[in-house]
Amino acid sequence: MTEAVIRLAAALQKLPSVGEKSAWRMALYLLEQDESVSHELAHALIEAKQRVCRCSRCFTWSETDICAVCSSENRDRTTLCVVERPRDMWILEQSGRYRGLYHVLGGVLSPMNGITADSLTVEQLRHRVATESIAEVIIGLGGSNEAETTAHYISRLLAEYPVTVSRFARGLSAGMDLEYADRFTLDQALNERRVINGGYR
Amino acid sequence: MTEAVIRLAAALQKLPSVGEKSAWRMALYLLEQDESVSHELAHALIEAKQRVCRCSRCFTWSETDICAVCSSENRDRTTLCVVERPRDMWILEQSGRYRGLYHVLGGVLSPMNGITADSLTVEQLRHRVATESIAEVIIGLGGSNEAETTAHYISRLLAEYPVTVSRFARGLSAGMDLEYADRFTLDQALNERRVINGGYR
Repeated sequence: MTEAVIRLAAALQKLPSVGEKSAWRMALYLLEQDESVSHELAHALIEAKQRVCRCSRCFTWSETDICAVCSSENRDRTTLCVVERPRDMWILEQSGRYRGLYHVLGGVLSPMNGITADSLTVEQLRHRVATESIAEVIIGLGGSNEAETTAHYISRLLAEYPVTVSRFARGLSAGMDLEYADRFTLDQALNERRVINGGYR
Repeated sequence: MTEAVIRLAAALQKLPSVGEKSAWRMALYLLEQDESVSHELAHALIEAKQRVCRCSRCFTWSETDICAVCSSENRDRTTLCVVERPRDMWILEQSGRYRGLYHVLGGVLSPMNGITADSLTVEQLRHRVATESIAEVIIGLGGSNEAETTAHYISRLLAEYPVTVSRFARGLSAGMDLEYADRFTLDQALNERRVINGGYR
């Protein structure tokens, strides 16, 4: 077992969800491939860290000081969607259903893990709401307890500004059978039910 | 979604068992880590391809022309274990139970996939048996049909030399309950059963 291969496997094992066995399989796979595969990955790693920074407005990953969405003239600048990570913003962008702006929080509140409002971009969000022409803040966080707490925190924080604060709807996923829904999902589906026919009054 | 991140995710996706979602998770994880994590991996990738070559005797990965095992004075040079990949050799080395030499075949015969004897180090194995002082060749290949075919092929190839050809025992794995053994394993366990007490004759 050569030192260089051990170092490569150790470096690969630092990737998320890569255990010792996977790291070894990857290292040995790369040794058997053409040199270009390793070199391309090495170059992409260095380039990404060199060129990618945070958008100074919405805090998503960007190669320019202000990202493409923030600097676009075709976006609805009165709506701001708060997401946890750049990945969430990109998922929404791929859906093509949202035309407003974004604000990347950088995480959700989790005091137990040392993640307080100071380690998120909460103050920058408040500043944007205070200075930009935003009419609605849509909280696009997930369904965890921490995300719910964060949503409440933001909603209280923004109460002093003339903005509507909303959050993503909860309920059954598209195509989801009731038998696969957990109790909380069913609770939410019931509590947030929509009238589809008012009936006779 | 920036170009540099897209390129990084695409390069990561070329690793074995890494799909699109995992590649994105890895890319975004690396962006959030200190630069040293990406740089260490990039350096390890380039270094491994630069420094690691095939041992010219046993064909395992090595940083020297002749690998550490082949050049060691403490190995039993009369025994040669034939394995499919360097990984298999390293697993046996870690067990510490084998003190002979190795020969890395580079795969197993699979004519359907274009893997014939010419694409493996079969001829080099024959040459070693003909020129080195080898008394036993242990075929340490797996249990697939291709591996069995390859074992038979090697055994026929070496029939003209005064060497014993053996293969790893087949049967129940250590700690394996019968209920989890498949039919082939049970067949092998029965066919290759060992007498533990001769009884009265």
